Amino acid sequence: MTETTDPDCLFCKIVAGEIPSQQIDENDDTFVFMDINPATRGHALVIPKRHTQDLTTIDPADLAACAQMAQQIAKRAKSQLHADGVNLLNCCGEVAWQTVFHFHIHVIPRYVDDSVRLPWIPAPGDADEIAAAAEALRG
Amino acid sequence: MTETTDPDCLFCKIVAGEIPSQQIDENDDTFVFMDINPATRGHALVIPKRHTQDLTTIDPADLAACAQMAQQIAKRAKSQLHADGVNLLNCCGEVAWQTVFHFHIHVIPRYVDDSVRLPWIPAPGDADEIAAAAEALRG
Ligand SMILES: [Zn+2]
Ligand SMILES: [Zn+2]
Repeated sequence: MTETTDPDCLFCKIVAGEIPSQQIDENDDTFVFMDINPATRGHALVIPKRHTQDLTTIDPADLAACAQMAQQIAKRAKSQLHADGVNLLNCCGEVAWQTVFHFHIHVIPRYVDDSVRLPWIPAPGDADEIAAAAEALRG
Repeated sequence: MTETTDPDCLFCKIVAGEIPSQQIDENDDTFVFMDINPATRGHALVIPKRHTQDLTTIDPADLAACAQMAQQIAKRAKSQLHADGVNLLNCCGEVAWQTVFHFHIHVIPRYVDDSVRLPWIPAPGDADEIAAAAEALRG
């Protein structure tokens, strides 16, 4: 862990209480608050308290803590908000829709007939291209 | 942990090698293979070896292991496939696009000018509605 807080980071300021938020929960390692541009009712963000830019830089222990907190919030979305399902989404990098560069997991409660749409059109891939990408990812 | 494998589960059969897959990696707790309907080049799935239906049922330790493995695959997507970013997506429930009921995290490499689209249109939410949902989620 080389960083703790970034004085210019919006989410660090939210954790510190310098910028107000609708806080949902927190523990030693994570903080949870509402997204102000919600995709659906109950859209929340789970972040590590320690500043880190994105999925490539987060300490694996903080990542685990965030994922486990996201699970708790997802369960509450189902029990408390009567969500029919939940999506977890992490956006790593500007091209992947990241706009605040402090790692966060979106917890998006889903409801029958909500307006959220699958971000791609599922279709079979080319087997050779999949095999080539797989070979590269085996590293 | 009440379940280990489900004899009728596609992903359990993939872990067991009964159904072929383009495997990328594995460890004691997780297994990684290519999605055959890729959103982008390198689209992979990280699953727990122990069968569990979804985000609401997965053992927190298995969830942590899957998230940490997904981080490794995301890093490789950037270094090996030269992805410009990555999305992680979990779909919990049919309404949230889950089609195989064995927990999985999508690791979707992102590229400038790929065809993946944000699943919702970001717009400010109503402050009172956000506050009411927050209150419910505080549980
Ligand atoms: Zn920060
Ligand atoms: Zn299974």
